[in-house]
Amino acid sequence: MTETKKQLIGNLKVGSEVETQVLVVEANLANYSSPNRAGEQFWRLVLGDISGTIRGIIWDVDILEEPLKEGDILYVKGDVSEYHGLQIVIREARKLDPDRINRRLFQPVSKRDIPGMLKELKEIITNHVDDPFLLKLLRDFFSDRDFVKKFAGSPAAKTIHHNYIGGLLEHTLEVVSFCLKFKEMYPDQIRADLLVTGAILHDVGKIEEYDAESFNFEMTDKGKLIGHICLGKEMLNERISAIEGFPPSLKLELEHIILSHHGQREWGSPEIPKTIHAFAVFYADLLSARLNQFVSVMQKNAFAESDWSEWDRYLDRSIYLKKS
Amino acid sequence: MTETKKQLIGNLKVGSEVETQVLVVEANLANYSSPNRAGEQFWRLVLGDISGTIRGIIWDVDILEEPLKEGDILYVKGDVSEYHGLQIVIREARKLDPDRINRRLFQPVSKRDIPGMLKELKEIITNHVDDPFLLKLLRDFFSDRDFVKKFAGSPAAKTIHHNYIGGLLEHTLEVVSFCLKFKEMYPDQIRADLLVTGAILHDVGKIEEYDAESFNFEMTDKGKLIGHICLGKEMLNERISAIEGFPPSLKLELEHIILSHHGQREWGSPEIPKTIHAFAVFYADLLSARLNQFVSVMQKNAFAESDWSEWDRYLDRSIYLKKS
Amino acid sequence: MTETKKQLIGNLKVGSEVETQVLVVEANLANYSSPNRAGEQFWRLVLGDISGTIRGIIWDVDILEEPLKEGDILYVKGDVSEYHGLQIVIREARKLDPDRINRRLFQPVSKRDIPGMLKELKEIITNHVDDPFLLKLLRDFFSDRDFVKKFAGSPAAKTIHHNYIGGLLEHTLEVVSFCLKFKEMYPDQIRADLLVTGAILHDVGKIEEYDAESFNFEMTDKGKLIGHICLGKEMLNERISAIEGFPPSLKLELEHIILSHHGQREWGSPEIPKTIHAFAVFYADLLSARLNQFVSVMQKNAFAESDWSEWDRYLDRSIYLKKS
Amino acid sequence: MTETKKQLIGNLKVGSEVETQVLVVEANLANYSSPNRAGEQFWRLVLGDISGTIRGIIWDVDILEEPLKEGDILYVKGDVSEYHGLQIVIREARKLDPDRINRRLFQPVSKRDIPGMLKELKEIITNHVDDPFLLKLLRDFFSDRDFVKKFAGSPAAKTIHHNYIGGLLEHTLEVVSFCLKFKEMYPDQIRADLLVTGAILHDVGKIEEYDAESFNFEMTDKGKLIGHICLGKEMLNERISAIEGFPPSLKLELEHIILSHHGQREWGSPEIPKTIHAFAVFYADLLSARLNQFVSVMQKNAFAESDWSEWDRYLDRSIYLKKS
Amino acid sequence: MTETKKQLIGNLKVGSEVETQVLVVEANLANYSSPNRAGEQFWRLVLGDISGTIRGIIWDVDILEEPLKEGDILYVKGDVSEYHGLQIVIREARKLDPDRINRRLFQPVSKRDIPGMLKELKEIITNHVDDPFLLKLLRDFFSDRDFVKKFAGSPAAKTIHHNYIGGLLEHTLEVVSFCLKFKEMYPDQIRADLLVTGAILHDVGKIEEYDAESFNFEMTDKGKLIGHICLGKEMLNERISAIEGFPPSLKLELEHIILSHHGQREWGSPEIPKTIHAFAVFYADLLSARLNQFVSVMQKNAFAESDWSEWDRYLDRSIYLKKS
Amino acid sequence: MTETKKQLIGNLKVGSEVETQVLVVEANLANYSSPNRAGEQFWRLVLGDISGTIRGIIWDVDILEEPLKEGDILYVKGDVSEYHGLQIVIREARKLDPDRINRRLFQPVSKRDIPGMLKELKEIITNHVDDPFLLKLLRDFFSDRDFVKKFAGSPAAKTIHHNYIGGLLEHTLEVVSFCLKFKEMYPDQIRADLLVTGAILHDVGKIEEYDAESFNFEMTDKGKLIGHICLGKEMLNERISAIEGFPPSLKLELEHIILSHHGQREWGSPEIPKTIHAFAVFYADLLSARLNQFVSVMQKNAFAESDWSEWDRYLDRSIYLKKS
Repeated sequence: MTETKKQLIGNLKVGSEVETQVLVVEANLANYSSPNRAGEQFWRLVLGDISGTIRGIIWDVDILEEPLKEGDILYVKGDVSEYHGLQIVIREARKLDPDRINRRLFQPVSKRDIPGMLKELKEIITNHVDDPFLLKLLRDFFSDRDFVKKFAGSPAAKTIHHNYIGGLLEHTLEVVSFCLKFKEMYPDQIRADLLVTGAILHDVGKIEEYDAESFNFEMTDKGKLIGHICLGKEMLNERISAIEGFPPSLKLELEHIILSHHGQREWGSPEIPKTIHAFAVFYADLLSARLNQFVSVMQKNAFAESDWSEWDRYLDRSIYLKKS
Repeated sequence: MTETKKQLIGNLKVGSEVETQVLVVEANLANYSSPNRAGEQFWRLVLGDISGTIRGIIWDVDILEEPLKEGDILYVKGDVSEYHGLQIVIREARKLDPDRINRRLFQPVSKRDIPGMLKELKEIITNHVDDPFLLKLLRDFFSDRDFVKKFAGSPAAKTIHHNYIGGLLEHTLEVVSFCLKFKEMYPDQIRADLLVTGAILHDVGKIEEYDAESFNFEMTDKGKLIGHICLGKEMLNERISAIEGFPPSLKLELEHIILSHHGQREWGSPEIPKTIHAFAVFYADLLSARLNQFVSVMQKNAFAESDWSEWDRYLDRSIYLKKS
Repeated sequence: MTETKKQLIGNLKVGSEVETQVLVVEANLANYSSPNRAGEQFWRLVLGDISGTIRGIIWDVDILEEPLKEGDILYVKGDVSEYHGLQIVIREARKLDPDRINRRLFQPVSKRDIPGMLKELKEIITNHVDDPFLLKLLRDFFSDRDFVKKFAGSPAAKTIHHNYIGGLLEHTLEVVSFCLKFKEMYPDQIRADLLVTGAILHDVGKIEEYDAESFNFEMTDKGKLIGHICLGKEMLNERISAIEGFPPSLKLELEHIILSHHGQREWGSPEIPKTIHAFAVFYADLLSARLNQFVSVMQKNAFAESDWSEWDRYLDRSIYLKKS
Repeated sequence: MTETKKQLIGNLKVGSEVETQVLVVEANLANYSSPNRAGEQFWRLVLGDISGTIRGIIWDVDILEEPLKEGDILYVKGDVSEYHGLQIVIREARKLDPDRINRRLFQPVSKRDIPGMLKELKEIITNHVDDPFLLKLLRDFFSDRDFVKKFAGSPAAKTIHHNYIGGLLEHTLEVVSFCLKFKEMYPDQIRADLLVTGAILHDVGKIEEYDAESFNFEMTDKGKLIGHICLGKEMLNERISAIEGFPPSLKLELEHIILSHHGQREWGSPEIPKTIHAFAVFYADLLSARLNQFVSVMQKNAFAESDWSEWDRYLDRSIYLKKS
Repeated sequence: MTETKKQLIGNLKVGSEVETQVLVVEANLANYSSPNRAGEQFWRLVLGDISGTIRGIIWDVDILEEPLKEGDILYVKGDVSEYHGLQIVIREARKLDPDRINRRLFQPVSKRDIPGMLKELKEIITNHVDDPFLLKLLRDFFSDRDFVKKFAGSPAAKTIHHNYIGGLLEHTLEVVSFCLKFKEMYPDQIRADLLVTGAILHDVGKIEEYDAESFNFEMTDKGKLIGHICLGKEMLNERISAIEGFPPSLKLELEHIILSHHGQREWGSPEIPKTIHAFAVFYADLLSARLNQFVSVMQKNAFAESDWSEWDRYLDRSIYLKKS
Repeated sequence: MTETKKQLIGNLKVGSEVETQVLVVEANLANYSSPNRAGEQFWRLVLGDISGTIRGIIWDVDILEEPLKEGDILYVKGDVSEYHGLQIVIREARKLDPDRINRRLFQPVSKRDIPGMLKELKEIITNHVDDPFLLKLLRDFFSDRDFVKKFAGSPAAKTIHHNYIGGLLEHTLEVVSFCLKFKEMYPDQIRADLLVTGAILHDVGKIEEYDAESFNFEMTDKGKLIGHICLGKEMLNERISAIEGFPPSLKLELEHIILSHHGQREWGSPEIPKTIHAFAVFYADLLSARLNQFVSVMQKNAFAESDWSEWDRYLDRSIYLKKS
């Protein structure tokens, strides 16, 4: 890990000196307007970390060895002043190697413990999945270290719900948990091992939908052109084709669960749920996402003075925060 | 109880004699077409019980003391013949007193035990509702015998889900059960006593929406002109106004839960859910209704030969029944 | 009434001195950017009255005894300068008691005479409502001074139509007037007393939907969580329950008129109009609102040079103003 | 007029003889099924008049001189029997000349007096239209006997509202009447002569949309391919081009009123109303149509026993008929 | 091929004898209604071939060796009579082996020559696809006899367009032809080899969506649960994974073309077209389908007497057939 | 032509002198904020030409003889400086006569040769239109110099597709070209002369929809109140009424093509296409517009660094630009 110091942007104050790491959120070269510097340029920046964003200025472009671009991580040294809000006037700056950075300073992360969640997931598999083919399929996924690393490090969405590292894992556990509840209610119609397997795998395509390297959960080209639903089905097909004798009927059920888990065509599923297992995963997914989304708005407004939250465009409403 | 025998319509066979009780589903006086009986009339009927419907004919109108109308319960005696399907040619018929009938022969009923469900509901109240005002409110409802009788005898819907006696109670318990699950997931944001109270009361208006006397769960005039959402709020307001000192903020939360529990305006809620408790009840209600609806289609097609169910117009799909 | 002078914001000019009352529309504490005042703050304000808004600056926070907040009414003294448009540099300021303010300086008001409109409403009641129960109900409402004060002081909407003091009264008279026209056309199908009563009461819930104290017609918590439709039904139910022998069929008709007067579920009515009286009130309401909305856009653009109004987002169009 | 007798279909009874005029609503040649008549045919008919429809049978095709087709008017003689409802077994039949038929026996007609309505329309023109060009335009239309005959004989719609002879005239007067009401409310924004002219002419295209000869208000090819909105504009353009000096600005306003009077694109208007006059005609048209539609359902169900009408697919509801 | 004679159903006449092959479209066992045969049963059938359908009766169930079911092909002998339309009273019947049947008697087939179309397709590949990987991919598909047989024997849809054997091939050629037209218009933006490859492969999944054995183009379970879009992608992935060094960027483009070719999510595409090649295939597909659909309705009504076609529910209109 | 020099805005650099012609895109009089110039004003402008826009300042309003307004063309002389981007500080300015300006400096123009396109159109008429009435109709249009000038100088749309001079002509040729392709595919159902005539005339109304004088393709009042669809029909009707004996059936077909060419009511067509010719023109129009729109976004982003275009609000997507 790089050992430069880290001051959180949210804690900066006018008049203080600053020396920290920052993510370059926006970078523009601007022209000096004063006649005596005509033709010369400076950097107008927006800088960020997990605690917020701030504007930055580099008056002297020559302090940098190479041009800046969005997504760079910088070490900077300078002073905090005020100009339509706070800004850092930067005196020293250099690019840092992204692989030697503590990502948690720049990306939000689940409040739940990631290894603990992985353990919980494995116990669920052990307790609920007896069918040898389903069990083999899940073990093939979860004994693949590269897969597990990506799965555990992925958010469940870019902005709407579970949008933090570990979010995919946390969301998956919630979906499984709702599914087990449904199994309890309708034991005769639902097959636990199949439902749990579908619930665990429904969103695996997300690990290829978001760019693991990006500090901003950017979508990959594949994510935009194929989407996690079909990427997930492709991953499933590859694993299944490596398991001899995997029953075609189980393959069909699992493919259908993944394809239909958005519930409606206009929400991106090419088919709607036509089995009880697909129907159950769809509703469990919806529920986990929507509750997390509502509670996130509550948390974001927890210290606001108003009884009403800011308008939330995903929920399309302002929510009432007053405790009765 | 009337002691006349009951043969289920679904069991009748061509050529057999029949003596049973039936519900008059349709009743039309028709004109004889043969010239020798010009001017005379006969009854063309559709008769039903819980097992299905059958056509009926009364060639001699004089065997009845008074005209028939839909909703009557008859004792009939006759022979089963075939004419575009089965029909009963009725030789003897007389009206029965609906109050002396075993309704279960004519109305479907929950598979769960009704007193048992009531007991479960009361235990939930005891275990989860501490607030004295909420407790008093629930006890006022559930110590009112007339209310309890109607609540326990009501369906949750006419056709779509939980459409049987006890259905409202069964549905209510499911909604409460999902709500307790949500509370587990978000203990800091959710207040159990308020959520449980809202879940229990969200559909109370349904006892005035369906006609308790009707064998066919007909909607009342109030049901069609006011709807169970606003009827429920009116019932709530009446009970609350009888409790001195009931906190206005709790009243507001409960009213909002009832009003918004359909989640969207186009689904009949005049306001959308703007509190976590209202949001939770909406999703719990949706989930209970939708799963029950899907499973009902599975059960209805359980003995069909095809791997696919009949088209279901409420789910807008045919469902895949094959076990993998 | 406070006797400080009032200069309308719309009349202010650069370079002049100003001494007047203003409403605080926005209030932000900003940080000085000049190094010699580092750590000090000043007020950046938006100030308003019925004639428009203007920016305001208070460089010296100490001239105020307590912090400002939105909704305050201030007495201010200062100079009008220009900085991206006009602004007042405030030298003296103090809060005023909102109850001692002439609200008409801050809130738009109907062009029609309010007592005159109330008189007209009472004559309509006398001329068209014979039924003793309906008459009693209306008299109970309109002999309650507190109700009448709120009813006469309320707008019919926050932004779209009749959005001024007296607007609700003006709108109500228009709805009644259309209803009487319908009665003329369909005398056999429509009952005048019922229709007039429904028309008068259809929007009573609005007096609890908007905050009477707020200078900006803010919605109350009840307004946002219950809505004027259900608030209106609740007010109706309370008045009716105090009238012995009020016929249930009339109660049902009036409740239905109030609930269904938005005409469609997606427009906020939990039920659609199913009686001729409810259907008539819905269309009278729609007509009054829509015409007022269109004419308001015409008036707002009356002195514009263009033949076309600005785009109006509620009408979703620009309107053609040229006289032929 | 043909002097054959007329018995209304709605009054026929089993066993009676019948001799009357009927409209052929459906005509099918059917094959005898009995082996001894193999290869022979008979007519299966549906016959109608203003009071309803009845099935008809002509066993001997030779009693007719030429084949039947839908839309023919027949003189028939026969007997009323019953076979899945009433039917006439026809012994004698011959085609009648449609021009010598009393159309009122076959087409519904406005309850209002047609010459009286025309007179009222002319008085409105005299009282409200001063502008010489608008006056000339209206007089050109209404002094054209052929136009007036068609206008007075046309329905305003095929099935939904004012669907009877004189319906277009009746509807036009209602639209004018609402428009005058709007003028009263907004005298400064509305110009009476223009609005009245637009209201009178808004639906003139309907005289080419429905086939005047058809007993069933069939749409013409033009009606289906061009529609009354654009046909009306074409008729307007032709009349205006014959008036020297007609102001282009008035032409534009009138064209816009006709084109936009359905209010929204999805309702068939290529442009939405962008002038107060077009906006007013749209709402007056909507109101006249919708109230007539609702009241028609009431009238059709006036003698029904139920408190609720049959489901009406145009209103998409069943309506509550009980008088309170 | 079975050598029994074939008389087309559309040519049958009352009174004639019939001896032919028929498809069992519906099969129901019915009960005799006459008391003397109480308990006995007979077959009520609907029979079909490419020329239409007819009802059939088998009074004596014992003439069959095994029960009938939908989809069977029968040899039948009997007489044509009339009973609510024509029906065959069957005296002799036996099941035929579906594999020995001339399918063209039961399934419609393209008017274009299938080998000729295949040849055309191969020439297009030769002329327009230079890239070695794309060429290899196409050759792998089209040198696989089993694939070619299915591809050439498949319809493009069950009911809406190109719904006949060879329809998929005919449709594919039309899509390619439109695509080449687009390439002509936008040579700089479009890459011919990629576009042609995408056009040829866009619907390959249809060979697994429809059941090749079924006489009625029934959908397979995979067709209903996965859909031809994702089945097509799976087939593509399998072929590509067998080609060493296939460029990932070409794979991505082709996958995107297949996934997005329905153009919108609500039409079943999980992603919308985001490359010019995917956009072009979407519009070429739409155009081919829609024109074929419109022309089919014209052909079906070619000999009708009316100037207007029957209502077509897929086009949601009746079309004007008159030649000008 | 005015002989003042033209420097393209897109080429201006900080610090250089400028002397050129510019279009006034926005013009605002602003107040000086410095106390010593209180009450004085200056011009804040946005100036444009075909290469882009730039801000402009005129400190001394007296250098102009008359006030500026949007749409003016100015000769200006001044210096380019930087203030939140580039701006011209103008020292000299005078209005130019718009008729003496080279419009191509201010309006984009088709890349195809306009006379060449006109010639192509005439050859198409000669080659494909035999019917004497259709031929006469087209010749009447295209021998009218005023019409041809407007037709050739018009864009096909303001912003979405073919939004440049000559765009209407280019679009018309594309539509004709697609139509000829359709004729090839369905020679028996399509009549070439009628289809080609409809394709050529489908958008003629656009020459009255856009203001030929405006540098910004502003819509005319007629364009906004009537729309090009009905304006086109009016132009057609006028031409046809001048041709003796023009067959009504051809008139009806052509009117229907023009009216229905937007395909759906919500897209502005008062009727949907009900003939094969109207259906074909609708799809040809859609295709030409949509492909042009997609390719325009590609061209606009041709030199961008990103693999993805900016979000395009008309296509409602960002497009993938990477070449594979």
